[in-house]
Amino acid sequence: MFDLKKYIAEKKEKVEEFIKSYFNPSIKPSILHDSVFYSLTAGGKRLRPVLCIASYEACGGKKDITPYATAIEFIHTYSLIHDDLPSMDNDDLRRGKPTNHKVFGEGIAILAGDGLLTEAFRILSNPEYADVEPLNLIKVIYELSSSAGVYGMVGGQAMDLISEGKEPDRETVEFIHLNKTAKLISASVKSGAILASADDEKIKRIEKYGLSIGLAFQIIDDILDIEGCTEEMGKPKGSDIEKGKMTYPRVYGIAESKKKAKKLIDEALDALLTFDHKAEPLREIARYIIKRTS
Amino acid sequence: MFDLKKYIAEKKEKVEEFIKSYFNPSIKPSILHDSVFYSLTAGGKRLRPVLCIASYEACGGKKDITPYATAIEFIHTYSLIHDDLPSMDNDDLRRGKPTNHKVFGEGIAILAGDGLLTEAFRILSNPEYADVEPLNLIKVIYELSSSAGVYGMVGGQAMDLISEGKEPDRETVEFIHLNKTAKLISASVKSGAILASADDEKIKRIEKYGLSIGLAFQIIDDILDIEGCTEEMGKPKGSDIEKGKMTYPRVYGIAESKKKAKKLIDEALDALLTFDHKAEPLREIARYIIKRTS
Repeated sequence: MFDLKKYIAEKKEKVEEFIKSYFNPSIKPSILHDSVFYSLTAGGKRLRPVLCIASYEACGGKKDITPYATAIEFIHTYSLIHDDLPSMDNDDLRRGKPTNHKVFGEGIAILAGDGLLTEAFRILSNPEYADVEPLNLIKVIYELSSSAGVYGMVGGQAMDLISEGKEPDRETVEFIHLNKTAKLISASVKSGAILASADDEKIKRIEKYGLSIGLAFQIIDDILDIEGCTEEMGKPKGSDIEKGKMTYPRVYGIAESKKKAKKLIDEALDALLTFDHKAEPLREIARYIIKRTS
Repeated sequence: MFDLKKYIAEKKEKVEEFIKSYFNPSIKPSILHDSVFYSLTAGGKRLRPVLCIASYEACGGKKDITPYATAIEFIHTYSLIHDDLPSMDNDDLRRGKPTNHKVFGEGIAILAGDGLLTEAFRILSNPEYADVEPLNLIKVIYELSSSAGVYGMVGGQAMDLISEGKEPDRETVEFIHLNKTAKLISASVKSGAILASADDEKIKRIEKYGLSIGLAFQIIDDILDIEGCTEEMGKPKGSDIEKGKMTYPRVYGIAESKKKAKKLIDEALDALLTFDHKAEPLREIARYIIKRTS
């Protein structure tokens, strides 16, 4: 029996180790170092790096690509710091802890985010971390920057920002979820496949898997905001509703949203049908995502 | 006689053209598109891309690398948008126009900056723009992300931020100027040399040239804040002093600062001694920088 918990714990440990070793020497000024470190070690699930590594292994990769996988966590962490800012979501809590700007002030929080985003590309442009093909790294940088840029995460966040308090509609909520969440998750698994030199057919299937679980993940996050407990979420229940956020349950209702998430996970598993046992971690992660609500 | 004005105008036009063509289709939501475009076309001198192209040509490069050079302008523009934010320098004017957040609001301004930084790496990871070696692009991405990240521009800006109003000292002002300004300027010329497949000796000399003119450029900016006119600067004269900024004149006095800038320009020209006539644009740019104060 494949043990997902153990698998995730092992990959997570390597990610934590890389994070601890990366900022050497310490960043100057020290408040910036502390700010960057604070958010990087604030108890993230490391879903994106684990997905990247799992996809790499599913495609037959055998090297340790932890640094490149962790670069994606840098991008994710930057987005959380900036999302929480007063001029964005104005959140005081993240994973049960005060948000970065609450501890270090807005200016340093913005710079910590800027720094993490930039360092992600510095890691990805260093072929020495795992002796991989420069052309593959270039492709990974292109995927990640495309999914995180103005035609991806940044666009999704901007749409999220200007849509607050507006009447929800399907097109907008789908745009936000696809761009703000699903594209980077999909790029995470696609990056793993590219680093493993997978063929185009495999990369396409992995991308489909990533988009499907990415959308499902966000829909379930929306549902948990209504049904989950504050402790589990690390932020107050109902905070999306309070802010008038565009969410799936608001557009489709809870029952329909759950059905939609279930269907997406089925599609994700279908996309992996041509993969062998090495894709078991990816399959189990998909099943785990849907279990969060049931 | 080499005509610097004409040279700069020609390169600038190509940069402007690339900027106009890049965001196609338009970014959604449209306010983000407008915000990104507003700052990208707010009358920048395009010093960094021109330097990148001039260095590329000085090292014998013959292709049109405008897209890659313009990516550096994206990074520079992002840094200006974020620097101007209320939690940073809190500037209302930039190049004589309202700053980005004054027009589009803080949230969108932060996202426009994030988007520009990310798009820079998307451009740099697309080898099709000028059919260059992927390995050279990887090296350029490494240089630019190193110079812009926490051990470069972001660190310099953080130090600048926490040093406001403090008693100026040499070590701090040098740290700020080196990291906030000189490193990205140096990385701009270094990138040009790398793209031209220059040898290590040439790259080293180009890097030295870049650091020297970069530092001189910032020192002269400090001097112009005292001696220049508002019209020329696009922002009120004396704004550095008003904010208690760490500047060269505050630490060394004006006469000594001018001497220091002059010495740096001489060093920059010395670094190019082994280069032929193709480095004339780089030499003229160095001479132009020092002329701004005399």
